[in-house]
Amino acid sequence: MPTAWLNFARLLPEELPPPQDAEGGSALELMTRIRLRAVQEQERSDEALLPVPEEVRRRYAEIGRPTRLTRARALERHLGTPARIYLKREDQLPTGSFKLNSAIAQAYFASREGVRTLVTETGAGQWGHAVQYAARMFGLESIVFWAGVSARQKTSRRAVLSMLGARVHESPSAVTAVGRAVRESGRHASGSLGTAIGEAISYAAEHPEVRYVSGSNLPHVLMHQTVIGQETRAQLTALGEEPDVLVAAVGGGSNLMGLMAPFLEQKRARGDGLRLIGAESAAAPRLTKGTWRYDHADPGRMTPLSKSYTLGLDYELPETHVGGLRQHSGSTAVGVLRSAGWLDAVAYEEREIFETGRLVLRLEGFLPAPESCHALRAAIDEASAARRPTVIVVCVSGHGLLDIEGYLDAFPLQGV
Amino acid sequence: MPTAWLNFARLLPEELPPPQDAEGGSALELMTRIRLRAVQEQERSDEALLPVPEEVRRRYAEIGRPTRLTRARALERHLGTPARIYLKREDQLPTGSFKLNSAIAQAYFASREGVRTLVTETGAGQWGHAVQYAARMFGLESIVFWAGVSARQKTSRRAVLSMLGARVHESPSAVTAVGRAVRESGRHASGSLGTAIGEAISYAAEHPEVRYVSGSNLPHVLMHQTVIGQETRAQLTALGEEPDVLVAAVGGGSNLMGLMAPFLEQKRARGDGLRLIGAESAAAPRLTKGTWRYDHADPGRMTPLSKSYTLGLDYELPETHVGGLRQHSGSTAVGVLRSAGWLDAVAYEEREIFETGRLVLRLEGFLPAPESCHALRAAIDEASAARRPTVIVVCVSGHGLLDIEGYLDAFPLQGV
Repeated sequence: MPTAWLNFARLLPEELPPPQDAEGGSALELMTRIRLRAVQEQERSDEALLPVPEEVRRRYAEIGRPTRLTRARALERHLGTPARIYLKREDQLPTGSFKLNSAIAQAYFASREGVRTLVTETGAGQWGHAVQYAARMFGLESIVFWAGVSARQKTSRRAVLSMLGARVHESPSAVTAVGRAVRESGRHASGSLGTAIGEAISYAAEHPEVRYVSGSNLPHVLMHQTVIGQETRAQLTALGEEPDVLVAAVGGGSNLMGLMAPFLEQKRARGDGLRLIGAESAAAPRLTKGTWRYDHADPGRMTPLSKSYTLGLDYELPETHVGGLRQHSGSTAVGVLRSAGWLDAVAYEEREIFETGRLVLRLEGFLPAPESCHALRAAIDEASAARRPTVIVVCVSGHGLLDIEGYLDAFPLQGV
Repeated sequence: MPTAWLNFARLLPEELPPPQDAEGGSALELMTRIRLRAVQEQERSDEALLPVPEEVRRRYAEIGRPTRLTRARALERHLGTPARIYLKREDQLPTGSFKLNSAIAQAYFASREGVRTLVTETGAGQWGHAVQYAARMFGLESIVFWAGVSARQKTSRRAVLSMLGARVHESPSAVTAVGRAVRESGRHASGSLGTAIGEAISYAAEHPEVRYVSGSNLPHVLMHQTVIGQETRAQLTALGEEPDVLVAAVGGGSNLMGLMAPFLEQKRARGDGLRLIGAESAAAPRLTKGTWRYDHADPGRMTPLSKSYTLGLDYELPETHVGGLRQHSGSTAVGVLRSAGWLDAVAYEEREIFETGRLVLRLEGFLPAPESCHALRAAIDEASAARRPTVIVVCVSGHGLLDIEGYLDAFPLQGV
């Protein structure tokens, strides 16, 4: 179990371009005011290692960290590949996704800072679920703005969130100024992660006693997720393996950086000998079709301008079941990897990723989250093309047991 | 990881009354013909330990055995109890329940005996799910007769079974003579585990190339599940703990005996110093209201007569969401524990067990299967009554993420 989070920023090929205010804007000041002090300190730190507090480490152990690194032997046999495919099983955490790693850290910091209520956004629902779970751990309340299309699709996850006691608003909502403006605009009606981010920030701005917590994009979140890669590295070493390919799905970039950060020194040294792959949704093809430039992370323009691969604020996101990857922009850190040529990117259509999920269920016995299917699909493509015993490591960011509706939509039940 | 299954029959307070044919019946001969040879050998064995084959042990490791033994600290705090509550987390296995322990063993034996197709029954769906998963592991097919009421309730689990490729029939079905007879009788129309058992046996009788596998009740299944208790005992010993109370939900009795068998020598020595509790559904109160006598396990009378606590063949089971505990009779072995006074029994109503599940979700972060809620509820009752630091160990037999419909039925979503 790692004792420190990695300050990945020091390992990147270029410095992180800092966020900026839009002309006449004051988003940076707002973000300082509504965010937890501890995470802002982490983002300012020059240290290579940021210690994981004792209490957080105890909670990590309680939820089952280190998670397992399993070999996908049945999948390998099915593909007839010489590659060895390793799966980092974040899906086995109690809320079913990697999101808990940062949620626990942030809820802990909040409790230390005397905060009683957290407000946040969620796309597919994994982050909202994790925040509510972590909030309960530390006796806090949570308010979640949930991208409307996903909230309406996912009856099971909504039921679990409701039973956990979260206060959930479908976004765009009537609760915040941002939500009301989006509703009146007649655009982005189905909601998106970006709009939900704007609403959560707007809510925090209007309620001084509440703190805004983020589940992706921002550097401190990516840092917290480096427990994934640190464990993976230790587990591979114990097996006598060295990775040739690292694969992760990419939304806000935190499971990707979480897996890959501890291998960035290797990447620098080995060049093309270690490949990094980000798998995104063809419905939101930021890395494959976007532009590397400054943009707001939310259509409501509550966020500062940050540099990332973006499709532009006005990009109308299709209503897919891949809520976690459904945003028009992304994280600066992933953008730096991409623009420096360290990160390859692939995009997949919704139907093919649900086919991948079914295949993984049949062969490996577990149902991956739609987001994780992207990474698995990329790993399958790599393994299929492999001509020598390549070691491919995939982050299975979450399970799909609370995302069955998407699978059913893609492949309706027949005769059962 | 245990290297042998325990032959629990040698540890019981009395000998197991053997199954018998009804007058003029030939069910015993039929059961010999349609069952796997290996499991029948196990049931005849006088050995104290039955070795787990190397290949099965490898598969146990792959699915994540040993499962975790976690302390329910948040629950303890909530109850303000001096008791220490330990949870044996069978819910964390890939198909979400303990059923996989026997399914893997039986699928392995089937593959060794040249069998290509397995037929079985399932109540709540956990066993059918596990059989199909294990069948895939060994390249076999499976046919599942699923108690109709549960099959119709559980959209998510049905979707997973369908994606796994199982051939599923709602029971009573038109596929077997037994199913057709039950349909024509105008009784047991909603189906039950018992009727599904009869159908699976009937199907195997009509298809000589198919073998019938059972998920509970029968001695070999209970033996396979003793990995649960053996791991628990080792885990408790490593913690320096000795149990005062062991609790399990009781349907066919396999998770109960699986947890408790390795502690039966202690029970004999310590008497009331070690309490064993079986938690059943008030909708099928065999142990609390049934009679200890010979009866068929299925209304279709395909099974031999076996001695157990029974409500009688004609007992009309209410349509609950607790499909796994919904049978009119049970296993002989559990009956022996009960009739000898070694096993206490409690029965719970459906609404109170869903309340328990919600409480466990809020406090411990995971959603238990409706069946497992019975055990958790009994543990909570014991902990609430405890006046000294009692050690309570509960088998969490499965998770409830594929049983959300039951939770929603008991507590409809409001304002989310």
